[in-house]
Amino acid sequence: MSQTASYTVSGMTCGHCVASVTEEVQEIPGVENVDVVLDTGALTITSADPIDPAAVRAAVEEAGYQLA
Amino acid sequence: MSQTASYTVSGMTCGHCVASVTEEVQEIPGVENVDVVLDTGALTITSADPIDPAAVRAAVEEAGYQLA
Repeated sequence: MSQTASYTVSGMTCGHCVASVTEEVQEIPGVENVDVVLDTGALTITSADPIDPAAVRAAVEEAGYQLA
Repeated sequence: MSQTASYTVSGMTCGHCVASVTEEVQEIPGVENVDVVLDTGALTITSADPIDPAAVRAAVEEAGYQLA
């Protein structure tokens, strides 16, 4: 069984930003799927086990953005 | 001796966009240096011989942007 977690990312302005966030979040161990929507900033993470929100925050910041 | 040519690029929203434009324009044969300013859209190309403006336009469009 898998679960999803939803976050909102601020500061993304274009598709390159979306790609950067997606890439960083996908690198978190255990993450199975990442969906990022530019217009809304919605970040949805699918995983078998819960992902530490601190890891998500760190990945988003590594990409150069912030969690709203 | 080298010369510079100035253009204005529209549609860039972030540093990734600047990087994309820079990368594509740098690939034009004869281009020695490329400078892109996000805020103004200014694209400055340095070369020994003149660069065909059509090649510049094609490179900018390949990156996903437009000359203003």
